[in-house]
Amino acid sequence: MRIQVNKDRLLYHLLIAQKALSSKTPNPALQGIKIDVEGKSLAITTSNSDISIKVLMEGNGLDVEKEGSVLVPGKYFIEIVRRLDGQMVSLTEGEDNLLRIEADHSDITLNLLDLEDYPNIVFKKQSGVVEVNVRTLKTIIRQTAFATSTIENRPILTGVNFTIDGEQLTGIATDSYGLSQKKIQLENTYDPMNVIIPGKSLEELMKILENNQENVRIHFDQNRVLFEYDNVLFLSRLLEGNYPETGKLIPEEYPVQIKFNKEQLITAIERASLLSSRDGKNAIVKLDVRQDNVVEISSNSPEIGRVLEEVHPVDEIVGSPLKIAFSSKYLLEALRVFNSSEVIVKFTGEIRPFVITGEYDEDMLQLVLPVKTD
Amino acid sequence: MRIQVNKDRLLYHLLIAQKALSSKTPNPALQGIKIDVEGKSLAITTSNSDISIKVLMEGNGLDVEKEGSVLVPGKYFIEIVRRLDGQMVSLTEGEDNLLRIEADHSDITLNLLDLEDYPNIVFKKQSGVVEVNVRTLKTIIRQTAFATSTIENRPILTGVNFTIDGEQLTGIATDSYGLSQKKIQLENTYDPMNVIIPGKSLEELMKILENNQENVRIHFDQNRVLFEYDNVLFLSRLLEGNYPETGKLIPEEYPVQIKFNKEQLITAIERASLLSSRDGKNAIVKLDVRQDNVVEISSNSPEIGRVLEEVHPVDEIVGSPLKIAFSSKYLLEALRVFNSSEVIVKFTGEIRPFVITGEYDEDMLQLVLPVKTD
Repeated sequence: MRIQVNKDRLLYHLLIAQKALSSKTPNPALQGIKIDVEGKSLAITTSNSDISIKVLMEGNGLDVEKEGSVLVPGKYFIEIVRRLDGQMVSLTEGEDNLLRIEADHSDITLNLLDLEDYPNIVFKKQSGVVEVNVRTLKTIIRQTAFATSTIENRPILTGVNFTIDGEQLTGIATDSYGLSQKKIQLENTYDPMNVIIPGKSLEELMKILENNQENVRIHFDQNRVLFEYDNVLFLSRLLEGNYPETGKLIPEEYPVQIKFNKEQLITAIERASLLSSRDGKNAIVKLDVRQDNVVEISSNSPEIGRVLEEVHPVDEIVGSPLKIAFSSKYLLEALRVFNSSEVIVKFTGEIRPFVITGEYDEDMLQLVLPVKTD
Repeated sequence: MRIQVNKDRLLYHLLIAQKALSSKTPNPALQGIKIDVEGKSLAITTSNSDISIKVLMEGNGLDVEKEGSVLVPGKYFIEIVRRLDGQMVSLTEGEDNLLRIEADHSDITLNLLDLEDYPNIVFKKQSGVVEVNVRTLKTIIRQTAFATSTIENRPILTGVNFTIDGEQLTGIATDSYGLSQKKIQLENTYDPMNVIIPGKSLEELMKILENNQENVRIHFDQNRVLFEYDNVLFLSRLLEGNYPETGKLIPEEYPVQIKFNKEQLITAIERASLLSSRDGKNAIVKLDVRQDNVVEISSNSPEIGRVLEEVHPVDEIVGSPLKIAFSSKYLLEALRVFNSSEVIVKFTGEIRPFVITGEYDEDMLQLVLPVKTD
């Protein structure tokens, strides 16, 4: 292998691939970045136990003198390219499994890893793909992935459940404190589909997706999903098992409804969370709908002190007085994913889950489970 | 105690005092912030084992209704004030050792700490003070404190040695890899003085000093130093013992002298540091002055690879070829404190310390000790 390549473009593509680079791995080959030069293109491949990424670079800024494949030590290679001076960098595979990196007045030699140890990663495209606009995909990930569980004792809850029914794509995530559900309309009708994608994989994918109008082509396989976007292939494993039936958690009627300014509600809950009793790591906050159209948010920690916040809803409260307690962390995270500046909080009863919706957050609902207090 | 106070001004002063707030301390009273209201002023005091801070607030934005002193739980009080809405906050000492905090629609009650447990901290001003311009003081701290040792086995080296001789103030710091020395001219003549101030105290002081033209009044005591600046009193303990005699470390003649572009030298050493053998945590880099007016910076790590950088000095090299090896971390830190864009590196011999100076860094020198290699 021998190429001349634009340093900034190379670094840009390496930083995308870095998202799947293993730092701690039982297989040292996965600490490497695989570079394949073929024809007039350069492919960069990385992989860890959850995701694999392949980025293709071709056209301007790449001059191939000799084809070939090498496995470079990932962390060192990225740090070197990041710090090189000059516009172009020359990469030459030498004898004794060495890579020579030349740029400006720098002459660097890296010991290569053994290409034979690298697993064969198949980025296989399927015939039946689902196409989604990048922005739509980013929205559904942002509004659901935060709600996945980070506790490993029910692995299935660490993923987002995606289902397709005709033209409708639904994403659902839940831990034991809340649930998030977002539906989007696709532009075509597809066969039914039901998979669970790890939340962490989706968060890494988010970092790669830019804010543009392109489409992402999603290829579903038995136990893997491949996202095809621009010049990037992003492969994630799927979680195995049946996702719990969440439909019956969502109440059908809401006798009490309150419209809040979202920022006012967030800051009141944040202050109450500062001094509050704890359910494990979670701050417990109380909400009290008063007769006089004021909502009290309060907390009490006997050793430290207590907080009492009065929040004035945007409109007249619908329904009768009610008291409820909940973990503030989930509610705060849920409120922050709304695009609407006003949110409607809907209650069924004091020991029933409550739901938040927003006018400018179509087909999205956040559900919060109450906690029992004395 | 009962006051109305501007929230933003209160927070500004709390954040200065926070620099001396203890988080982990065997004395729980030191997790508190002492607030004293007397006449028309409010004093905020904090202390840990190394430094104590007292900030005075008076004038606009403070309305005293009742004098008094309280000891508030520091971390909680700052977080609450930071998150309050509204312009003014009301602080009222209640019965049962409680503080009531009211602002906008928030009504918060904090359990106070016991004022009797708080140590009596004396911010005593001395008659003979040294006056230094803020910018000058910041310069001498920035150019020396980084060079203190962080290893506790020779505690005296964790401090900066300040001496006054007539109109001259000298700061010296050294660990086992390098030495920094900066001299400044004072505006008056003072009695001789020789103290060692902990590097960490100076770094906290730096965070408080702003970039203005005011003077700092420095009060030296037997085992403490008090910096008086604007409305802030900053007290630090001194280190006890005799600072080592460093004068004889600095060579008197430099047969080899090379002028470098500082940024070019830094980036070459940074790249060489990426792949280098280690002396403990320190990357060892070699410098080779060649016959052809080029300087080679190189490193070699048998497992990973090697780096060879060619640096072209700004002027013709003075003196004959020479090879030297050193810990790159110290040299990089030293180069970064120069204001000059060109630096002169001066060598006495292959196993002698070398020195760096800069045209726009008057009376400052950085000395680097070589390391032995095979």
